[in-house]
Amino acid sequence: MFHNEGFRVLDPQECLRLLAKVPVGRVVYTRQALPAVLPVNFSLDADSSVLLRTSAGSGLVHAVDGVVVAFEADDFDAATRSGWSVVVTGRATVVTDPAQHERLSRVGPRSWVVTHDDVFVRIESEMVTGREVSGTRGAD
Amino acid sequence: MFHNEGFRVLDPQECLRLLAKVPVGRVVYTRQALPAVLPVNFSLDADSSVLLRTSAGSGLVHAVDGVVVAFEADDFDAATRSGWSVVVTGRATVVTDPAQHERLSRVGPRSWVVTHDDVFVRIESEMVTGREVSGTRGAD
Repeated sequence: MFHNEGFRVLDPQECLRLLAKVPVGRVVYTRQALPAVLPVNFSLDADSSVLLRTSAGSGLVHAVDGVVVAFEADDFDAATRSGWSVVVTGRATVVTDPAQHERLSRVGPRSWVVTHDDVFVRIESEMVTGREVSGTRGAD
Repeated sequence: MFHNEGFRVLDPQECLRLLAKVPVGRVVYTRQALPAVLPVNFSLDADSSVLLRTSAGSGLVHAVDGVVVAFEADDFDAATRSGWSVVVTGRATVVTDPAQHERLSRVGPRSWVVTHDDVFVRIESEMVTGREVSGTRGAD
């Protein structure tokens, strides 16, 4: 914990519990040699891996399949200057098994965008880190 | 515009207008060869560059000075499945000029975390992109 610094480090269990509360996160990857980031709908699978739902035609899928990515989600309150942020880092793979795809179509993340070619991308939770800003030491 | 796809592409002016509405964004960079992402307080300078305020001792400063990074901010509403996201990509540099630092201490981004060694990082707005999800075509 780093109360003097204004933020508290979260353990992985706390991180996963918080991640389960929000429907949108951001996947961080490299595209054409540049840093890239894209918001995506996601959910957590039973093994705590992160599941993304996106369009098969999106540049995202080709850029991340088999590659280590970071995935970030947060919830900040400007009024109280408080909130939390969690980052999951791990290898991403496109779900190609038809049975898994069918299962995830039923229980996986919902998409906010109509796509007719949904694919699911799984990010292994190899590293899970997070921090919380308490809002009691907002500074000017 | 891609209404059929459920999201609308925003022009740079719209993007900058939206960015000005939120106090926290996420800087996307590479650290120890891995994709990294960190929420930061920010503001827009008069020339539309993105100004970050962070601690001099943070790994962020050393990792991004002189390097092209991405910066993302968004605002999503889970209830209506709508929102927007903007990404600014450009070279980041630490502000070292004492007069600039003093100016930014007065008019630059506020920090939600007490730091005694604030530095400002400027990200040139070389590429500004954004999209909006309308919420009218949420899918299951």
